[in-house]
Amino acid sequence: MSAKSAKARIGVLGASGYTGSELVRLLLRHPKVEIALLTADRRAGQAMRDVYPQFSPFTLPRLVAIEDVDWTRAGLDLVFGALPHATTQKVIAAMFAAAPDLKVVDLSADFRLADPAAYTRWYGGEHHALHLQGEAVYGLVEVYRDAIRQARLVANPGCYTTCAQLALLPLIRKQAIALDDIVIDAKSGMTGAGRAAKETMLFSEVSEGFHAYGVGHHRHMAELDQEFSRAAGRDVIVSFTPHLLPMNRGILSTIYVRANEREGAEALHAILGEAYGEEPFVHVLPFGEMPQTRHVRGSNMTFIGVAKDRAAGRAIIGSALDNLVKGASGQSVQNMNLMLGFPETLGLEQVALFP
Amino acid sequence: MSAKSAKARIGVLGASGYTGSELVRLLLRHPKVEIALLTADRRAGQAMRDVYPQFSPFTLPRLVAIEDVDWTRAGLDLVFGALPHATTQKVIAAMFAAAPDLKVVDLSADFRLADPAAYTRWYGGEHHALHLQGEAVYGLVEVYRDAIRQARLVANPGCYTTCAQLALLPLIRKQAIALDDIVIDAKSGMTGAGRAAKETMLFSEVSEGFHAYGVGHHRHMAELDQEFSRAAGRDVIVSFTPHLLPMNRGILSTIYVRANEREGAEALHAILGEAYGEEPFVHVLPFGEMPQTRHVRGSNMTFIGVAKDRAAGRAIIGSALDNLVKGASGQSVQNMNLMLGFPETLGLEQVALFP
Amino acid sequence: MSAKSAKARIGVLGASGYTGSELVRLLLRHPKVEIALLTADRRAGQAMRDVYPQFSPFTLPRLVAIEDVDWTRAGLDLVFGALPHATTQKVIAAMFAAAPDLKVVDLSADFRLADPAAYTRWYGGEHHALHLQGEAVYGLVEVYRDAIRQARLVANPGCYTTCAQLALLPLIRKQAIALDDIVIDAKSGMTGAGRAAKETMLFSEVSEGFHAYGVGHHRHMAELDQEFSRAAGRDVIVSFTPHLLPMNRGILSTIYVRANEREGAEALHAILGEAYGEEPFVHVLPFGEMPQTRHVRGSNMTFIGVAKDRAAGRAIIGSALDNLVKGASGQSVQNMNLMLGFPETLGLEQVALFP
Amino acid sequence: MSAKSAKARIGVLGASGYTGSELVRLLLRHPKVEIALLTADRRAGQAMRDVYPQFSPFTLPRLVAIEDVDWTRAGLDLVFGALPHATTQKVIAAMFAAAPDLKVVDLSADFRLADPAAYTRWYGGEHHALHLQGEAVYGLVEVYRDAIRQARLVANPGCYTTCAQLALLPLIRKQAIALDDIVIDAKSGMTGAGRAAKETMLFSEVSEGFHAYGVGHHRHMAELDQEFSRAAGRDVIVSFTPHLLPMNRGILSTIYVRANEREGAEALHAILGEAYGEEPFVHVLPFGEMPQTRHVRGSNMTFIGVAKDRAAGRAIIGSALDNLVKGASGQSVQNMNLMLGFPETLGLEQVALFP
Repeated sequence: MSAKSAKARIGVLGASGYTGSELVRLLLRHPKVEIALLTADRRAGQAMRDVYPQFSPFTLPRLVAIEDVDWTRAGLDLVFGALPHATTQKVIAAMFAAAPDLKVVDLSADFRLADPAAYTRWYGGEHHALHLQGEAVYGLVEVYRDAIRQARLVANPGCYTTCAQLALLPLIRKQAIALDDIVIDAKSGMTGAGRAAKETMLFSEVSEGFHAYGVGHHRHMAELDQEFSRAAGRDVIVSFTPHLLPMNRGILSTIYVRANEREGAEALHAILGEAYGEEPFVHVLPFGEMPQTRHVRGSNMTFIGVAKDRAAGRAIIGSALDNLVKGASGQSVQNMNLMLGFPETLGLEQVALFP
Repeated sequence: MSAKSAKARIGVLGASGYTGSELVRLLLRHPKVEIALLTADRRAGQAMRDVYPQFSPFTLPRLVAIEDVDWTRAGLDLVFGALPHATTQKVIAAMFAAAPDLKVVDLSADFRLADPAAYTRWYGGEHHALHLQGEAVYGLVEVYRDAIRQARLVANPGCYTTCAQLALLPLIRKQAIALDDIVIDAKSGMTGAGRAAKETMLFSEVSEGFHAYGVGHHRHMAELDQEFSRAAGRDVIVSFTPHLLPMNRGILSTIYVRANEREGAEALHAILGEAYGEEPFVHVLPFGEMPQTRHVRGSNMTFIGVAKDRAAGRAIIGSALDNLVKGASGQSVQNMNLMLGFPETLGLEQVALFP
Repeated sequence: MSAKSAKARIGVLGASGYTGSELVRLLLRHPKVEIALLTADRRAGQAMRDVYPQFSPFTLPRLVAIEDVDWTRAGLDLVFGALPHATTQKVIAAMFAAAPDLKVVDLSADFRLADPAAYTRWYGGEHHALHLQGEAVYGLVEVYRDAIRQARLVANPGCYTTCAQLALLPLIRKQAIALDDIVIDAKSGMTGAGRAAKETMLFSEVSEGFHAYGVGHHRHMAELDQEFSRAAGRDVIVSFTPHLLPMNRGILSTIYVRANEREGAEALHAILGEAYGEEPFVHVLPFGEMPQTRHVRGSNMTFIGVAKDRAAGRAIIGSALDNLVKGASGQSVQNMNLMLGFPETLGLEQVALFP
Repeated sequence: MSAKSAKARIGVLGASGYTGSELVRLLLRHPKVEIALLTADRRAGQAMRDVYPQFSPFTLPRLVAIEDVDWTRAGLDLVFGALPHATTQKVIAAMFAAAPDLKVVDLSADFRLADPAAYTRWYGGEHHALHLQGEAVYGLVEVYRDAIRQARLVANPGCYTTCAQLALLPLIRKQAIALDDIVIDAKSGMTGAGRAAKETMLFSEVSEGFHAYGVGHHRHMAELDQEFSRAAGRDVIVSFTPHLLPMNRGILSTIYVRANEREGAEALHAILGEAYGEEPFVHVLPFGEMPQTRHVRGSNMTFIGVAKDRAAGRAIIGSALDNLVKGASGQSVQNMNLMLGFPETLGLEQVALFP
């Protein structure tokens, strides 16, 4: 931590997007950090309150352009990257070149895939920071906690993939379900699509309607493939279909699996209960109860439920989280806490806002 | 048709519910019918405008209690039943006893299941009009059109089941998909839950959130079992999970299937295209395009799309309709048109209301 | 009407916006017209279904660029202008130059203000078709019906202004209210803001929130000033504040007035009832009842209510309409019906879609 | 504070309503209190998680019926009343009889009106705890801070009235506006209507629509009359119209006033800025900027804006707060902090949740 201050000095790159503003919301009330840098290229020179009026009562650094930051003199302890993919790798490579001791939690997709070929296949371009791609630790805390503590660069997982992995990884690891018969039907609130001004994201296009998108070829599949295959020790290819909900926050994944065990759904429930008994941010509901996104809104919590399907051995698993918190900024603060040696739950204790 | 009038005289039982008011919306502009009777037991004596102010500018019969209707003298040609199940069978049995020439389109679940044992198993009580249960024709127009033309009593299908059947029946009939591996993930707007004053249906409980319900044991499964098994010539048990969307109208079913054909998803698309080429109210989108509920809102249209999944032979099918129109009242008017010898599309030509 | 066809041939300029698509929705089912031309510069070459999938089942002309239209040979009877202001005046001037017999209903603001100075003051530029500005008839049907029947160019009123004028004009004309003490607090659904891709109109910016905009200087004030002053025979300047509602369709104006009459609110209610007794699209509710936007959704109806305030002589008036129908495209079809000699209500009989 | 514990022991009466659950959300993270009692008559015996699943991960006392509470032995320091009016006065009278040293913050309307006649006129019944009505301090912190510190019983203000009073009281006190010409057009999210299962509050009745209610006779007027008249030193009767927004949280009041000062709107802005310069929970925006409800959502903040109207001397004031926080439970915790000698902002530092 910086010698100049009792609090860690934190930067947020891309503070004008929703994951950026959510980071500011959380960091403003985190007792061990100080927001020392906010960047937003198109809004450089403006106050954060001009971009997000909810911060009007607070004192925050003025927005600057990334190219105007002097990483050597910035005196930062840790930086959150909330920039688009591709841009991210260049910015972070330059940053580490100037300030190799900095720590980074990156919320883009740039460092999530360990395999450069997979990156190129799914994101359609060469990776420009291969050495960092190798160094990066995948930031799903419940799985990689120890590695994260030692990491300089953590790749914060995607929102859909956090939701699905938390529900499935313990079952895959225990070989409790058929690996070729997994269907993940995922539904996300609109904040998951970001703040870019696109016609398809206008209120009147989204409100009072529902649809699937990216059917058969959504980029989050790459991350699921990597982590499910790692856990299984063989290739796992799931069916995954994302949908957009006419609401702001929340992802619910409804997952259809076939249990290997005789006991069926109850056995799966027991495995999840055991896996997450001590986890502060994953809560397994009583058997047969299904999670609702509204009950985790604004919090860093994931709710998981398991129910029996009609056909013998089949089970239905529900997994719900707030895509901006546990699905993005909250989990990245959880990563920061580990990397800076703070208690893991610090600044993340908010109770869900319902209604 | 009644000798007294050039227009058919129509009654709506249960006009204070959403399917009742939707019937009134459609029938008011139907050129061949006259709304002659509206019942609503708890609101008897009131004007329809007191219950639904949108009808304020129109002249409509005052609401009456069912027990005050004299079926012999009412001079009706056809009655829509929009009453709760169980109540319905008694009312319709009494009505036919008094006026055997009346025709009925029933929107409840009471006459959808041909097997009395299935009815008792799913609805938890004996059926009190077994003779009518046998007589009733299942009102999925695209399948039973000819029988409906001759029927006295038509059981209008459920909203979820219409949506799923239209997408799957042609594929099952052609033996084009694996029957033991069908997953139907269904999402419905709140009007599907009706107008009963329940805490779980309050705006603040529903808005800005999403959840599954009836997991593993929703009553619409009985109807799917019956019709899919009829079409397949063997028992078919699908995985079916309904969810509630924070919006008013629309059902989208995302359906995961495994094609038997070599050709995979494209072959399924071709079968559906052929099945519905001449249908006025089922529209198959170009291959790879997925339907959105907003594009059928307020209309009697069903939009169906087919896309390829990643795993070989797997396909994802989307099916969207307005639960109050093609999923309920619109389809029941379509049934009425057939039963009274009108053109099938009469009064159902509304273009979807988007945005 | 065109000799070539029993139906009037209609063009829609700017079919890719919401008022454009709403025109297509209405015209598709209008028994006396045929959609012969659809323009959309940025989408030229595409099918209407690519821009609005709800039209997928229908046959419609392909979208063309305005500059590619040969007005002399197009053989149109009437054209709807659904283009931005400023652009509109040039397009329509050119069109009339080529085809002087064409009729036009313009939905932009370009021909609503009779005073060129007022236009320049509010819209910040010189008017480029002053001769047409003079010729144009203001298309508030309930006020200018006779002039509209004879007009070649009708300026369709704004959505906010239609809503407020229908509630206030009869009262101003009868000198029934204090002219210097009128407060109009107006709230509109998001479709009123159009389909332009702006950050402030994204779902996540709009949903679950409410705010005023254009406070003290909204352009619709110019139209209100003009029409209220005409009706009063002296200058009238109202307080007018627009707000954005987290919903798609509907405007509600809550209007605070001081009655000149002794009788107060009841007298105002009587004046409105008398003024609109025969009007097909303005419905005055019983005294004390207030309108709701949902009860006019999708219809061409305006609902008006009057209630007594606590302070003696003060009254509160509510006025509700669907901004895309009576507030824009529906009213423009009403104008077309008059201009082409059709019954005024033709194609506008849709009953409101609630819920 | 209780000698038995380092933390104050707190009870919440009526924990199953929305203000009750919001209290639990805030108190769970308040560092100086412990939730020791939760009552909910109809849900007695259940766990709080059965009523509000978002509390599933937390340990909370089981819900009990009020009549089963032994106030003498409960060992509580302070109780929040979140019960319906009329019921409240009896419960609190009985509680004080058994435990006279207890402190109470009451969120009902029962102790807000100092005048028994006004209570009877507006609430239609005799008051059954007149002695307490006299003792109660009105809990608008920014006005009655000192009295609240000494109070045993504080009447927490209503949501609409907090919003309007914070905007108007400094102006009335300074005689800066015309007192007979105040129009308050107020709009509230649905949580303000509570959790009672009523047809008018169903999602499908509320979504995608907007309307006024209680026009000319809403009960919150009584509270406004009392406090505005107190501040003015003469009777003040405002025009006040509440509306329901299709969203969960937030009140926006748009207020139309006539400035007495020459300077007009700017002078009003200066008075408000000065009044609230040191207040932690009232934030005056730069002149001309208007507040949005979304920017205070979930926080205890009130945002106030002032803009110039067109007519000379007229101004438009916007005031926004979260009806469940500053408009109810948050303000009641603010009262508790004062009554128990804690820092006023403790447990209320949440930053608004947007989007």
